[in-house]
Amino acid sequence: MDKKVAVFRRERFNAAHRLFNPRWDADTNFRVFGKCSNPHYHGHNYELEVKVTGDPDPETGFVMDMKVLSDLIQEQVLTRFDHKNLNLDTVEFKDRNPTSENIAVAIYNLLRPHVSEKYGLQIRLYETPRNFVEYPAT
Amino acid sequence: MDKKVAVFRRERFNAAHRLFNPRWDADTNFRVFGKCSNPHYHGHNYELEVKVTGDPDPETGFVMDMKVLSDLIQEQVLTRFDHKNLNLDTVEFKDRNPTSENIAVAIYNLLRPHVSEKYGLQIRLYETPRNFVEYPAT
Amino acid sequence: MDKKVAVFRRERFNAAHRLFNPRWDADTNFRVFGKCSNPHYHGHNYELEVKVTGDPDPETGFVMDMKVLSDLIQEQVLTRFDHKNLNLDTVEFKDRNPTSENIAVAIYNLLRPHVSEKYGLQIRLYETPRNFVEYPAT
Amino acid sequence: MDKKVAVFRRERFNAAHRLFNPRWDADTNFRVFGKCSNPHYHGHNYELEVKVTGDPDPETGFVMDMKVLSDLIQEQVLTRFDHKNLNLDTVEFKDRNPTSENIAVAIYNLLRPHVSEKYGLQIRLYETPRNFVEYPAT
Amino acid sequence: MDKKVAVFRRERFNAAHRLFNPRWDADTNFRVFGKCSNPHYHGHNYELEVKVTGDPDPETGFVMDMKVLSDLIQEQVLTRFDHKNLNLDTVEFKDRNPTSENIAVAIYNLLRPHVSEKYGLQIRLYETPRNFVEYPAT
Amino acid sequence: MDKKVAVFRRERFNAAHRLFNPRWDADTNFRVFGKCSNPHYHGHNYELEVKVTGDPDPETGFVMDMKVLSDLIQEQVLTRFDHKNLNLDTVEFKDRNPTSENIAVAIYNLLRPHVSEKYGLQIRLYETPRNFVEYPAT
Repeated sequence: MDKKVAVFRRERFNAAHRLFNPRWDADTNFRVFGKCSNPHYHGHNYELEVKVTGDPDPETGFVMDMKVLSDLIQEQVLTRFDHKNLNLDTVEFKDRNPTSENIAVAIYNLLRPHVSEKYGLQIRLYETPRNFVEYPAT
Repeated sequence: MDKKVAVFRRERFNAAHRLFNPRWDADTNFRVFGKCSNPHYHGHNYELEVKVTGDPDPETGFVMDMKVLSDLIQEQVLTRFDHKNLNLDTVEFKDRNPTSENIAVAIYNLLRPHVSEKYGLQIRLYETPRNFVEYPAT
Repeated sequence: MDKKVAVFRRERFNAAHRLFNPRWDADTNFRVFGKCSNPHYHGHNYELEVKVTGDPDPETGFVMDMKVLSDLIQEQVLTRFDHKNLNLDTVEFKDRNPTSENIAVAIYNLLRPHVSEKYGLQIRLYETPRNFVEYPAT
Repeated sequence: MDKKVAVFRRERFNAAHRLFNPRWDADTNFRVFGKCSNPHYHGHNYELEVKVTGDPDPETGFVMDMKVLSDLIQEQVLTRFDHKNLNLDTVEFKDRNPTSENIAVAIYNLLRPHVSEKYGLQIRLYETPRNFVEYPAT
Repeated sequence: MDKKVAVFRRERFNAAHRLFNPRWDADTNFRVFGKCSNPHYHGHNYELEVKVTGDPDPETGFVMDMKVLSDLIQEQVLTRFDHKNLNLDTVEFKDRNPTSENIAVAIYNLLRPHVSEKYGLQIRLYETPRNFVEYPAT
Repeated sequence: MDKKVAVFRRERFNAAHRLFNPRWDADTNFRVFGKCSNPHYHGHNYELEVKVTGDPDPETGFVMDMKVLSDLIQEQVLTRFDHKNLNLDTVEFKDRNPTSENIAVAIYNLLRPHVSEKYGLQIRLYETPRNFVEYPAT
């Protein structure tokens, strides 16, 4: 088949974070990140959308079994980030600011080794229904 | 105009289906498709999103009249699939597994001959709010 | 506390059904229920909302632990109805028409014995985003 | 007019919290609250719905001006809770577990003195789209 | 059956309006209604939710056939208000300010004579996802 | 970084409009645009989604600060269109039919000069949840 099919799976995780650049002083952090840099953290219900692009298998009719994809997201992403403090509880954001952009890139890097190279992979992450990101951008 | 505009129309249909490969025995079907292969069927509220890409007409300002597009989807897709058993009541899935991937491809093939070649066409199909597919994939 | 607090938990199930009165002939069934009486069934993504009303426990701050409520719905409702044909696969609708009204009453009757009498209980069931029911009605 | 009209205003806030009873040891907290008791907090996008019930003013046609209601919620609730850590940054949850039930009661108590007694007042708080509470319960 | 069941049907209409009290001068209208009193009108996608409460019919399992309810709303409400200017094109708001509160009361009064007295009737009207009203209030 | 990240910001505006081609007579306008050409206007809650594509800044982790993007949309788009009659109150649609297609192109043209050329820009505009457009189309 010359045209590909994409399948999407949505999952959720709830996490605390603060936006913060350790190389800046408190005033600069507050000036740039505003209330998002509150030292005691705030949090979000993140909505994660994972897109896998490929050819449907002729026997199953699946590009990828959604149950397998869901389990993979659970194992590689939700166990790391769900009900966690992204700044304190994860290795991914020990030295990296947990902006939506950086979280989406981190999730891509966590999933990419576990999704066969024959498939395309794209991440969408909703921090709120009004603010969201996509990586790699279409 | 060198940049195109896309218009999207969403419609709904409610259908029963089961996932099932007739070349496999019952055990293999259950192992691969799990509860989705229940012999008595289950069902979904499918959300269908049709994207048509082209140049707006200078007189109307429309790429394509949404009413015309909605009527076309009604005529070509909803009359075939709405309130139907996809496995038993349709020719499209007599010998093809009604996965979301295959349903999206079938809808594309039903609509393509009725949408002028000057337009691009893409289908999104939501089986549930958490599982959906796109064809052809962006 | 003289004013009560209500907690709500939403769950989903996907099922096939047809509307059908076995005491009527096919024509009467079709006249009353239209395409919803298709003999081969159609289906829905049902959204179920369970409301439990009571006093928060002073030690936990919970009216009822949402995890416990979610497990109860899983055990009493989803194992019976999810990925099932309501007409063929359930005892509740062997001789009762699976309208949204009757499904909501059946779910209430399944849950009521397992929710302490000190709590109020109410069911909302969305057959589609446009059609839904509540029992007992406020 | 003998029948009342209710007006509803929805607002959002993003906050961190943990569920925790200081009179219990860590094991008991973990056994009861599970991952919700993570010591480093997690967080949510809270959706707040405030219902005010009364008679429409014959001159304006308003029960209560939505702009006034929105400003009141901003002033009394969002400035206290938005982008905050509920356990550490608020007086309301210094000694009270920030469950959805308790947060809804706290918001009611914050707003009640500022809404004329001639109006009824009710709070709905969505911690996630699947878990929410209402106070006082209908 | 001693407990009632409620059925809900949602419909949509798109209309223009302005908030305006003809007994006030322009300055007072602007002071009270702000940008909502723009003389050239603005508009909304109104979401209308109609709740009918009663006993399910033992033969059909319906409180009220949703198709019948939908047709009634179409006939009594949508033909009057959809794609209309509420201030200029309707008799209901010739001399009454088209606030959400007043629109909900008008819709109730339009539907009440056509819904049997054995049923309860309640209207919800969403002017935006953030601003909505209910009549009669629960 | 060779792969780009896209950030999306959603905003809302409420406006009145009519579809109308001044070079056509009333009958032709009605035949082509139907009830959308009602001379007294109707209206919508428009949902606007702005996508900006680029490289995250290594210091902030932002492609573009969402607050800056939100303020820009407020300043360039919402002040022009929110609570306005698009046909009468705006220069953009004095001589251009305010279809969704044309509104999306106009918004793109309003924002493009204020978004650095190093960024990609794309607009999505929802006229209703069922009808929406994208420019430039992916």
